[in-house]
Amino acid sequence: MKVDKFPYLWYYCYRVIAMKKIEIYDSTLRDGAQGEGVSFSVSDKIKIAECLDRFGVTYIEAGNPYSNPKDAKFFEKAQSLHLANAKLVAFGSTVRKDTAPEDDESIRALLDAGTKYVTVFGKAWKLHVDCILGTTPGENLTMISSTIKYLRSKGRTVFFDAEHFFDGYKDDPGYAVEVLKTAEKAGASALVLCDTNGGCFPDEVSKIVRASCKAVTTPVGIHCHNDTGCAAANTVAGVKAGAVQIQGTFTGIGERCGNAALTTVIPDLQLKLGYNAVNPKQLENLTKLARYISEIANMRLPSASPYVGRSAFAHKGGMHADGVAKNPRTFEHTDPSMVGNKRRFPLSEVSGRSAVLPQLQAVEGSLTKSSSETKIIIDKMKSLEEEGFQFEAATASFELLVRKQLGKFTPHFEIDHYRIISSMDSLDGNTYIEKANAIVKVRVGDKSEITADEGEGPVNALDKALRKALEVFYPELRRMYLVDFKVRVVSSNDSTAATTRVLIESTDGENTWTTVGASKDIINASVIALNDSIEYMLKDR
Amino acid sequence: MKVDKFPYLWYYCYRVIAMKKIEIYDSTLRDGAQGEGVSFSVSDKIKIAECLDRFGVTYIEAGNPYSNPKDAKFFEKAQSLHLANAKLVAFGSTVRKDTAPEDDESIRALLDAGTKYVTVFGKAWKLHVDCILGTTPGENLTMISSTIKYLRSKGRTVFFDAEHFFDGYKDDPGYAVEVLKTAEKAGASALVLCDTNGGCFPDEVSKIVRASCKAVTTPVGIHCHNDTGCAAANTVAGVKAGAVQIQGTFTGIGERCGNAALTTVIPDLQLKLGYNAVNPKQLENLTKLARYISEIANMRLPSASPYVGRSAFAHKGGMHADGVAKNPRTFEHTDPSMVGNKRRFPLSEVSGRSAVLPQLQAVEGSLTKSSSETKIIIDKMKSLEEEGFQFEAATASFELLVRKQLGKFTPHFEIDHYRIISSMDSLDGNTYIEKANAIVKVRVGDKSEITADEGEGPVNALDKALRKALEVFYPELRRMYLVDFKVRVVSSNDSTAATTRVLIESTDGENTWTTVGASKDIINASVIALNDSIEYMLKDR
Repeated sequence: MKVDKFPYLWYYCYRVIAMKKIEIYDSTLRDGAQGEGVSFSVSDKIKIAECLDRFGVTYIEAGNPYSNPKDAKFFEKAQSLHLANAKLVAFGSTVRKDTAPEDDESIRALLDAGTKYVTVFGKAWKLHVDCILGTTPGENLTMISSTIKYLRSKGRTVFFDAEHFFDGYKDDPGYAVEVLKTAEKAGASALVLCDTNGGCFPDEVSKIVRASCKAVTTPVGIHCHNDTGCAAANTVAGVKAGAVQIQGTFTGIGERCGNAALTTVIPDLQLKLGYNAVNPKQLENLTKLARYISEIANMRLPSASPYVGRSAFAHKGGMHADGVAKNPRTFEHTDPSMVGNKRRFPLSEVSGRSAVLPQLQAVEGSLTKSSSETKIIIDKMKSLEEEGFQFEAATASFELLVRKQLGKFTPHFEIDHYRIISSMDSLDGNTYIEKANAIVKVRVGDKSEITADEGEGPVNALDKALRKALEVFYPELRRMYLVDFKVRVVSSNDSTAATTRVLIESTDGENTWTTVGASKDIINASVIALNDSIEYMLKDR
Repeated sequence: MKVDKFPYLWYYCYRVIAMKKIEIYDSTLRDGAQGEGVSFSVSDKIKIAECLDRFGVTYIEAGNPYSNPKDAKFFEKAQSLHLANAKLVAFGSTVRKDTAPEDDESIRALLDAGTKYVTVFGKAWKLHVDCILGTTPGENLTMISSTIKYLRSKGRTVFFDAEHFFDGYKDDPGYAVEVLKTAEKAGASALVLCDTNGGCFPDEVSKIVRASCKAVTTPVGIHCHNDTGCAAANTVAGVKAGAVQIQGTFTGIGERCGNAALTTVIPDLQLKLGYNAVNPKQLENLTKLARYISEIANMRLPSASPYVGRSAFAHKGGMHADGVAKNPRTFEHTDPSMVGNKRRFPLSEVSGRSAVLPQLQAVEGSLTKSSSETKIIIDKMKSLEEEGFQFEAATASFELLVRKQLGKFTPHFEIDHYRIISSMDSLDGNTYIEKANAIVKVRVGDKSEITADEGEGPVNALDKALRKALEVFYPELRRMYLVDFKVRVVSSNDSTAATTRVLIESTDGENTWTTVGASKDIINASVIALNDSIEYMLKDR
């Protein structure tokens, strides 16, 4: 009994001293890749791993080398990856039934991944043992034990993912705890309690995690899915009940409804509940990193995402905007700068004048709430919004709009006309898409320039021809290029005759700016946005 | 004391008998409209109110007639609206300080709305009393009391929204409870505890709601925001602690990070926790209604939304798909049919053959996991996905792809060629966008037809010309029309030369189907998707 007591005492001391320290285990590259619509290339994975490392994540679960050949390739490449803080983890299952670990291909793939840390998942719910593995509860324990022991003997640090732990516990608490104890005895360094189906609520999680932490001395982790909309709350409840490792994906992507978003639970725990997960300086990169990872994943980061969404600190209602202007605490539960986000007052019909005012004043300091110009600008903005424009993101177009209304804008060029020709021919069963051709004539002062270009589709052809013509007058436009081009059908009810909104993000290498165009004709919408983007580049000339 | 005891006893009996009955209070049209990017027209609001009524919502908070003129117009129109189940509620604030209710414009607007039910919000946090209202705690109580009494005297049933109740309670529990008691004494029919800033966690909510329910006898409501990612969990915790009215917006849209989504909390409470919110038959409309409301709001319903998202029951990981095939309970916490959603096996590289198989077999029953055709089809699909196609949504294009690979597809027509001309001219400072013109020649068997049409932009012109030519051969195409047209820039790094993916949803009035096209040229991408949509309409001919 003395042997048992020592680690418990040690663990108790550890918990008292470092109680509030939390380890972050990111599974964007593995569980996140199981989200619908997500597909990472090997180079995407490398980029994301480097970012997560810089941010200060403790572990990066980077893939399942057995089930996905792309992941195996990643681990091969990752050998030369130098991570400053994070440890790479390879993920796989326990051995197959009636198989010795040394004969199991999936275990071999795990070892071949060449990581010091591995996570193996095993069944903690009898339903799965019976129905999926087709084996007995006892044999399942043996499979867990032999897998962990074998990987330990090969020098690996092993985390054990107790799959369906909560469902298993609700079904048979004794067996679920026995699974944990088996993994502990075999040498696992962390026991991760998974709500694999995402069906739990915080009070259940709290009760079950507390009981489990009492039954074992190994550090416990928590891995939640969002199928009841409670992934974040369940993770927080798990930590409060004793879990010291939080598993999730950075932006919450994952199987079905996704995983706990680390962008939510890290600030929840660190800023509101006094736990220590990352350096506060690093936490200020949270928003930037969330947007970067979403971009690489080609997933839209929902604007309402807690802490990191574009709208997370956007005060649209007039009363809210007024309140925040008086004292941010009145309508903000957290200071946005702590997570690298910004307070915003979106420009819209619901927002009062005081919401728009700071943005107006940024362009023209003398404007006040009661200036007649303020009313004129807001009216113009609202009528353009009715046509399909939206200025919330397109702040460069908004600035030009304000300047125009104040009579402080002189256009640097005018498009006299354009002609675009698109064509396709089919011959002998093959289809030939011709490059689109565009002719553009521009006027600058009393001079003019007409030229043409071809491109991938009509917008690209026009973009190239327009800039080619203007570079004759404004050589600095050579430094400018477009970094993003977004198309949104605004009134989809009208199908192909619907109004289209185009957002263009441009850069001169240093600054970036966004402009907007809207029209029933996608080419015209693009021209409006392109025109603004070029005028914005030239505005201080 | 006897007077006080009676309602308490009555309430106690009510709670015991009907304990599990929950009232649903939907604020999509008011708090939802405060979400960034949301803008409802009056007719949008009418449509949504009718849907919510049919679904079985108890109360519909339809707007703030004082602060938003559009809302006032809605209530005018709503007089002739016949709702079968739901009660319309107008929303507004308590009187201004030093103002009698009869002299307050906002109270007059509330009465003018003409609804039997009104909700007034008042301050429950001293910080707001001082900093926003600029008055004393005592005067705030008077304002709450006089407002409610006045509205009661005008025959209204009054709900009291205790704004910032949780922050107020944490700051000064005595005062927060006094606010509730004041509203109760003045005649409020429900006391709604609001986590206006969304900064709470479930254990706090639980404790505070429980204490509040003990302090008053009036039914208590719960209104949560999602700024810590806990809106759903907090609402559930509030109900478990005694709240009987849940406030939220149907799909979770709302100020900043949004409100509790009723699409999450209704099934959470009804399917998993034994409460009774709506008729189970109506619950089966949950998914359909969520998608419809998102469409009207022109907001994207996140595919990972619990219960109602496209991915909510999508099993992408190979092992998950295999497990669900054996027994759905293994990887599903709820039966999707109970909320009107569907189990899906998305088509993608991570999904094994067994995930794709059911969809293949739906087209061709004889295919098996090991058929050589299965491999050929999956390879083709993956190579198209690399070009930018995506078949997860475009099941009609997928079906055509399978038929083509099996040699079971004969095209009904061929596009011989098209020419599109787009042009713009500027004259005297005005811009003239010409309608786009399209010429299309199609071949059907050994016949051909060439025609032209004009439209709003190149895609619309082409769509019209193509169908005009084909209707000569296939008159049934007159019944077909496009209901949705989506454009997504796939690789936004290449800006205007990026690959564009077009999704087209078509209908013949009875069925709808979705097709996909991808190309660097948006016109070509549209043609591919249009072509498939017409072939799909004709497939059983």
